[in-house]
Amino acid sequence: MSASDGLGAGEIDPPQRLLMGPGPANAHPRVLRAMSAQLLGQFDPEFTDYMNETMALYRQVFQTQNRQTFLIDGTARAAIEAALISVLAPGDVCLVASHGRFGALLTEIAERCGAVVHVVSAPWGEVVPMAKLAEAAAAVKPRLIACVHGDTSTTMAQPLEGLGEVARQCGALSFVDATATLAGMPTPVDAWGADIVSAGLQKCLGGPSGIAPITISDRAAEHIFSRRHVELGLAAGGPSGNGPRIASNYFDLAMIMDYWSERRLNHHTESTTLLYGARECARLVLAEGLEARFARHAAAGRAMTAGVEAMGLTVYGDRAHKMTNVTGVYIPEGVDGERVRARMRVDFGIEIGSSFGPLHGKIWRLGAMGYNCTKPNVLNTLGALEAVLRTEGVALPSGQAVDAALAVFGSGIAA
Amino acid sequence: MSASDGLGAGEIDPPQRLLMGPGPANAHPRVLRAMSAQLLGQFDPEFTDYMNETMALYRQVFQTQNRQTFLIDGTARAAIEAALISVLAPGDVCLVASHGRFGALLTEIAERCGAVVHVVSAPWGEVVPMAKLAEAAAAVKPRLIACVHGDTSTTMAQPLEGLGEVARQCGALSFVDATATLAGMPTPVDAWGADIVSAGLQKCLGGPSGIAPITISDRAAEHIFSRRHVELGLAAGGPSGNGPRIASNYFDLAMIMDYWSERRLNHHTESTTLLYGARECARLVLAEGLEARFARHAAAGRAMTAGVEAMGLTVYGDRAHKMTNVTGVYIPEGVDGERVRARMRVDFGIEIGSSFGPLHGKIWRLGAMGYNCTKPNVLNTLGALEAVLRTEGVALPSGQAVDAALAVFGSGIAA
Repeated sequence: MSASDGLGAGEIDPPQRLLMGPGPANAHPRVLRAMSAQLLGQFDPEFTDYMNETMALYRQVFQTQNRQTFLIDGTARAAIEAALISVLAPGDVCLVASHGRFGALLTEIAERCGAVVHVVSAPWGEVVPMAKLAEAAAAVKPRLIACVHGDTSTTMAQPLEGLGEVARQCGALSFVDATATLAGMPTPVDAWGADIVSAGLQKCLGGPSGIAPITISDRAAEHIFSRRHVELGLAAGGPSGNGPRIASNYFDLAMIMDYWSERRLNHHTESTTLLYGARECARLVLAEGLEARFARHAAAGRAMTAGVEAMGLTVYGDRAHKMTNVTGVYIPEGVDGERVRARMRVDFGIEIGSSFGPLHGKIWRLGAMGYNCTKPNVLNTLGALEAVLRTEGVALPSGQAVDAALAVFGSGIAA
Repeated sequence: MSASDGLGAGEIDPPQRLLMGPGPANAHPRVLRAMSAQLLGQFDPEFTDYMNETMALYRQVFQTQNRQTFLIDGTARAAIEAALISVLAPGDVCLVASHGRFGALLTEIAERCGAVVHVVSAPWGEVVPMAKLAEAAAAVKPRLIACVHGDTSTTMAQPLEGLGEVARQCGALSFVDATATLAGMPTPVDAWGADIVSAGLQKCLGGPSGIAPITISDRAAEHIFSRRHVELGLAAGGPSGNGPRIASNYFDLAMIMDYWSERRLNHHTESTTLLYGARECARLVLAEGLEARFARHAAAGRAMTAGVEAMGLTVYGDRAHKMTNVTGVYIPEGVDGERVRARMRVDFGIEIGSSFGPLHGKIWRLGAMGYNCTKPNVLNTLGALEAVLRTEGVALPSGQAVDAALAVFGSGIAA
């Protein structure tokens, strides 16, 4: 702490850190600059234009035609909770496809909504076969099928082709948590037939956490609007609507859709700063092009994987379903994983990830996401990791990791 | 929309606006700059130091010794919902003191929590006598007494002296929504004896909305921890805790307190950018000094009031309980209030507020908050309003408004 100004806390001056864990990644400087723009009133026509533009941009990012595509003012899990609590009334059945920590989070949130939760689990490091999900859906007839696309806790990406059909066949809606994959791996919302998909900015979008893009199909919106109750302070003559109210005001998507509609019905005060940031993230993604961006993440993932294997380390999990933007690596026998992370941070200024639950102390997680998903960052991370492991007494083939990664990328300089 | 880059949305470039409504106000440039700093990982020691410093700074801003003083990642109403849902189990009695739209919001949120809500109302433009609240508390024996300090919908500030005693006498906890007053009017949390007090940055703190300071007494924390359940994905062997879970994961203050404690139990990913902003807001407040800041808001409120009265307009509500930082003004007979607001915005670049519910179309709300609470801003707003009203055909004593306000402030230039 700096006490120079007598407040016990000096000016914000974060150390240089390259964030190569499972997220947050560093924000793109253009996003940081956009967030330093001055505020506007939330109903200023210039601001509502920014809101409408943001909706249009995120429709492209989500690869959807959904009119209801906007932002939730909170972190990625805020959007998950908004989706679940707005769809699920107490007693509704929710079927969760779980393949890691964030699948457990869906269960946790759905249970807190009062839903009856059935879980189809894959062992950590694997994914849930769609046939198994379909079978469970036919059996339990859920109101909602909830899935995680990329679960960073295991580095696995759940295949979601056919999700919409499975849901429609049993009369369910579907939800996908795409926090860790949106703008890094293909998340074709309409092609999946997914009804609600949400994300965060702090992974492949190159922004900060704190605001969460979400997209909602017309049929999901219709279901949510059937639960609509206008807020007590706004409705003339008491609350409107039929049946029990959605059990949250802040996360009531019917209200939030009214706020983002031309009705502009007052709800929260939109976070101007983070909307500016989210809008700039989307502009950057679309200027690069989705396909190019997915290819960039895929190349970095291949290079990271090749690098750690060349070092003699073992990659975690089912390779056929590995996320491109994060790589799990087993901590070698006898190595103190946390000390390696500390050396990476202190000596090289690079953050890599530890892990949760059953993988705690067993794997590191190396990310290359969004703004950080570049050749230099992958090469420097591999070089630093090799040097740290050598310092820690691990016998390694020197220089192989960087060479292997470079072979994947190719050099930018002609031989 | 700018289509210059083919995305249908150009670079963020908000028009110059002086936000002199009931909030948001313009952010202090130092806050905007702080938010453009690069991100850190949420468990980086440098970042957790920033978190701890932010807690210490907000203890001073809230005038409290409460250890549990931190930020909620969401707008001001997110913190309100976190407080209510973490304290109130379904069936618990909540007593709400309501004197405007935000009192109705407390009722709305408490009802959605499943609480049995009793309301002690004051007519709009007045406040709730503490004796009346005490009487109701003794009668209904609430789990929680919930109040709004400054309700911008009516511009009234509810006196809260004795709140803690009233609550303790009936075994209740107390909550205060200080969104519109924190750092603008005295909000002595410990002197009130209030158990939970929350706010937002976008009023008197000079920051953006999107993150919300909150402070929680030890006894309230103890009650909330008695409802603690560690998250499914984190607890070994399933969820811990006794009794029904708090009906929200995102707003479970027991989890959020664990996240902000030295345990650093993973919950959401803290919004680095908005934490930087909130921290800078607090640094600015404390560098100015609370008393000086309250005096600045009081002077601006007196000047604004004197100005509009000199113009021949009528100030709304009970003058004995008027908030210093926002002034309600009756729209003169025959004047189109929205056209006046549009002229203020378009011709003068100044935003003033309309109003809600029973006051819709009846009053404007003129704010002078945080960074915008200055002599020039008050004088220019009054001058612009006078000019616009003249254009709209209102007979006014020319020049009197600015002169009256200037007489309150005094000129900074010797005669």
